[in-house]
Amino acid sequence: MTLMELAKQQGKAKVAIAARVDGVLRDLAAQAPPGGTVEWVMPEDRDGIEIMRHSTAHVMAAAVKELFPEAKITIGPAIENGFYYDFDVENPFTPEDLARIEAKMEEIVRADFSFEREELTKEEARARFPGELYKGELLDDIPEPTVSLYRMGNFLDLCRGPHLPSSGKVGAYKLMHTAGAYWRGDSGNRMLTRIYGCAFPKKKELEEYLHLLEEVKKRDHRRLGRELDLFSVNEEVGPGLILWHPKGSVVRRVMEDFWREEHAKARYDLVFSPHIARIDLWRVSGHLDYYRQSMFSSIGVEGQEYQLKPMNCPFHIQIYKSRMRSYRDLPIRYAELGTVYRYEPSGTLHGLLRVRGFTQDDAHLFLRADQLDEEIYSLLDFTLFVLRRFGFDRYEIYLSTRPEKFAGTQENWAKAEAALKRALDRKGLPYEVDPGEGVFYGPKIDIKIKDVLGRAWQCSTIQVDFNNPERFDVTFIGDDGAEQPAIMIHRALMGSLERFFGILVEQYAGAFPVWLAPVQTDVLSVADRHIEYAREVVAALRAAGYRAEGDFRNEKLGYKIRESQLQKVPYALVIGDREVEGRQVSPRRRGGEQFPPMSIGEFLETLRKEADNSGE
Amino acid sequence: MTLMELAKQQGKAKVAIAARVDGVLRDLAAQAPPGGTVEWVMPEDRDGIEIMRHSTAHVMAAAVKELFPEAKITIGPAIENGFYYDFDVENPFTPEDLARIEAKMEEIVRADFSFEREELTKEEARARFPGELYKGELLDDIPEPTVSLYRMGNFLDLCRGPHLPSSGKVGAYKLMHTAGAYWRGDSGNRMLTRIYGCAFPKKKELEEYLHLLEEVKKRDHRRLGRELDLFSVNEEVGPGLILWHPKGSVVRRVMEDFWREEHAKARYDLVFSPHIARIDLWRVSGHLDYYRQSMFSSIGVEGQEYQLKPMNCPFHIQIYKSRMRSYRDLPIRYAELGTVYRYEPSGTLHGLLRVRGFTQDDAHLFLRADQLDEEIYSLLDFTLFVLRRFGFDRYEIYLSTRPEKFAGTQENWAKAEAALKRALDRKGLPYEVDPGEGVFYGPKIDIKIKDVLGRAWQCSTIQVDFNNPERFDVTFIGDDGAEQPAIMIHRALMGSLERFFGILVEQYAGAFPVWLAPVQTDVLSVADRHIEYAREVVAALRAAGYRAEGDFRNEKLGYKIRESQLQKVPYALVIGDREVEGRQVSPRRRGGEQFPPMSIGEFLETLRKEADNSGE
Repeated sequence: MTLMELAKQQGKAKVAIAARVDGVLRDLAAQAPPGGTVEWVMPEDRDGIEIMRHSTAHVMAAAVKELFPEAKITIGPAIENGFYYDFDVENPFTPEDLARIEAKMEEIVRADFSFEREELTKEEARARFPGELYKGELLDDIPEPTVSLYRMGNFLDLCRGPHLPSSGKVGAYKLMHTAGAYWRGDSGNRMLTRIYGCAFPKKKELEEYLHLLEEVKKRDHRRLGRELDLFSVNEEVGPGLILWHPKGSVVRRVMEDFWREEHAKARYDLVFSPHIARIDLWRVSGHLDYYRQSMFSSIGVEGQEYQLKPMNCPFHIQIYKSRMRSYRDLPIRYAELGTVYRYEPSGTLHGLLRVRGFTQDDAHLFLRADQLDEEIYSLLDFTLFVLRRFGFDRYEIYLSTRPEKFAGTQENWAKAEAALKRALDRKGLPYEVDPGEGVFYGPKIDIKIKDVLGRAWQCSTIQVDFNNPERFDVTFIGDDGAEQPAIMIHRALMGSLERFFGILVEQYAGAFPVWLAPVQTDVLSVADRHIEYAREVVAALRAAGYRAEGDFRNEKLGYKIRESQLQKVPYALVIGDREVEGRQVSPRRRGGEQFPPMSIGEFLETLRKEADNSGE
Repeated sequence: MTLMELAKQQGKAKVAIAARVDGVLRDLAAQAPPGGTVEWVMPEDRDGIEIMRHSTAHVMAAAVKELFPEAKITIGPAIENGFYYDFDVENPFTPEDLARIEAKMEEIVRADFSFEREELTKEEARARFPGELYKGELLDDIPEPTVSLYRMGNFLDLCRGPHLPSSGKVGAYKLMHTAGAYWRGDSGNRMLTRIYGCAFPKKKELEEYLHLLEEVKKRDHRRLGRELDLFSVNEEVGPGLILWHPKGSVVRRVMEDFWREEHAKARYDLVFSPHIARIDLWRVSGHLDYYRQSMFSSIGVEGQEYQLKPMNCPFHIQIYKSRMRSYRDLPIRYAELGTVYRYEPSGTLHGLLRVRGFTQDDAHLFLRADQLDEEIYSLLDFTLFVLRRFGFDRYEIYLSTRPEKFAGTQENWAKAEAALKRALDRKGLPYEVDPGEGVFYGPKIDIKIKDVLGRAWQCSTIQVDFNNPERFDVTFIGDDGAEQPAIMIHRALMGSLERFFGILVEQYAGAFPVWLAPVQTDVLSVADRHIEYAREVVAALRAAGYRAEGDFRNEKLGYKIRESQLQKVPYALVIGDREVEGRQVSPRRRGGEQFPPMSIGEFLETLRKEADNSGE
């Protein structure tokens, strides 16, 4: 009995698209095993979606071969959100080609060709692909004596499978764009043309995805960074090095002030450390052995090597070690907005999200073992408080535990892991354990924040460190008078100010909440006779500590309002005859909402309330 | 007639110690010229003091030769505040030796030997210094055929003069310390022993100077930095690179917050720029040609040279140039607390005062020509406001004008110099003009602040720049639609945060005024039963935004008070029975002043008033 027959028997034939037989994925056309367990793979299953995407790649390749018979086929896997297929063609496909290919795919889907698997020897297989040199190469590399081919209509491909029962079962798809890709990713090989497509089980999902892509594009922090004059990166300065323009700097200053204030309240000590130091600091820390490829090359000074700092830890350790510490002095918490420099290949740099110089909101905690539990709990609390203030309240949390190679004792690891777990459990936070994924120096909690588009961004990290205390001999005098190693925690809440700012720009699409907005209120005069009072309004807002700008140009009001909207300023106050007479203001919300006239005092109260609320 | 006889004739013999004959200094023993002008050099004249100090060096050398006949004499000039003399001796002089030398000097002074000049040929002179090989070497190097010797008592020295009439005329002196010094400053030569002495016309001046030295020592920011745990420099990190400890960082944060707040009020835009950039930025600016010896060596990144920034200007220029600017946009003022790195030989580094990495309170102003006057005036005003807030209200001001080589037009220089002058005059500030001492790129105002000991420190600078706008093509669109060069002003108020902080530590001897103090109030419990209320007091102070610490240890009250005093905390609140009962606090001022018990609210009011006043 075939799996398809079994599926029919069980009434699954219309929905199941493949089966997992004794844990191995199979086409429905395969033989059902006499004994063995069979699980049906449904279109919405993770495996089902992947199979469907892979089959859609075959449908696309079939369409390409019909339209461009001279195209040589290579490989076409499923990927996140869709699939691709690489072709060797004389001329890369144009957008018009893509439209034709999409139309041809429709025909193939409507024809509902079944996917038929055939197993044969490599030599037999080779004969089936006359002229397809890439298939020949792939066959050369397969160690097994037999291989499988899949036929769907006229299209034949060397493929491990499994596939949908037929082309009619593919979901909703769309061809996206083409890109160059070297055969087998090797720049010594021929450049192929890759067609990317996306595919989802349901049309609605595809539409949502396409909408998401639109949103992502609209929110691109690089575009908004230019339009709102927030920051720039330029060739003269060098790639990956950020120039913070005045408006971006206001946001950064607000972020920093908030951060410093909350850290002071949480009894952290702020410190400042230099951006270079003798390279030996990183020799002792071990970074020179494990991390050199991410460090800039060193600088010679009077016969000594100096290093642009890739992290702040060794400096904080030096401050700790500048005097003898007693058990009574702990916990000691040093926090610094420390700008670090790490080498990244220029090709991987991306706006504010991947840079060469960035400011960590770094802190190092020096603890006694008995303080670990309470400290990690408060730290977790503090982290979420800070993230919430910026409007992030959905997270993905990961706890990474002891890897095979590790520093410190097994006992301490167990204690630290337990402390991290207890803190997560006590906060009632769902998390995934990544077994063995801790850094060699200690276990850690990583928090990814989810933005309004549902994208996850790795920001906060809480890492226990058993390595540095050992390497740098970081100790304290215990209550028994004996010297003991301190436990260190590295942590960053936002991670990198640059990156976090980039995420904020995308999260809010540049329309920052009042507390973060570079300009909080524009004051727009209707005519020259309103300027005097408008100036008073600006002065009153500034005196109350708000960021207000006046637009007193001799321009049409509509134009001024549009500009204020484009700059995404939360409020515009239009000052005309009525406002001057009543000594009032008429606020207009960024979205267009119009408030009734009110006194300056009432408006300040509105602003204050809004600024106090996090993330709008 | 000798000058001495002439002096007697004119009644000057008792006070004049030398004469300026036709502008050339002469001993009183010299012949009076038949015609020629004669000016008497008095003991308190600048030249008089120098002659007296030089003669004191001879007196010291005479004493050394009597006590240590084997000592070889070399040279002994007058220096600031005194003199030195270098000797070649087997064993360096001990403090006890210095005391003996001082006693012997007293004898020589009391003996009142006259200084007698003799002129003779080099060969004759050589015969007078048997065994004094250094004198022989000096004679070798004198091109003239004849030289002068001075005899005073038994002591003979090769010397140009002039000298006092006799050893009895030396002022008040004191031998200070010894130091090693290479013969002729060349480390290939033999190491000599130098004895430093100070000398002043009057005993009172010497005492004042010695007192000043004591004060300087007591206020040494390096010692206070250690004792008050403010900062450190260490070998592991590297010389000239500052680690700001928590308490120093509090002061820095207060300095920075004040600075940022006032700059925002003064309509500056804050910006942030990276610490490295492609070296070409400094090629364009011209620093690579003129300033390379003060720059760290470059860093190679993907075949490009990058440079640790020695200044922030090129970054601010890039931000300015990131879009087209109109005459309506100006003035634009970019301010940054930018940490720069400059190479200094390790031997010249000194605590916070001379370092390799420092944070400039930098700003660059981009102006139209018609804005120069008003802008410089406000800038001067702003500068003095900031300096006053830190307790400095005495200045030495210098206006440096066009040098021979200059960038820009003569006309613009004249305008800029006039604007700088007008601003100084309008503020009614006394200043000195340093003709030709401007930087090649523009005229400048330098302000030295005078500290409580009367020492002058160069901090603020206001520099007009005609060079960078040209080199970087910094322009704006004028009201006629044509592109014009902008005028730039560089300025720093504190100069370097590190250095200014060092000066502040010395200015206040570590006893910072309330607004700057790392800890503003210590709360000291007398016994355990007072801790609960003491905690409340700490919490109330912190809630009101003050930096308060509790000392609830089981230690004697006197001990706690002493510690608080040693840490120079402005207020200590002792919490005992009376305070708990009355829910009051009893403040004790840093100096010892005891206030009557008052409510927490009243104490907060006291603190607030004091914190609001600058410089106590």
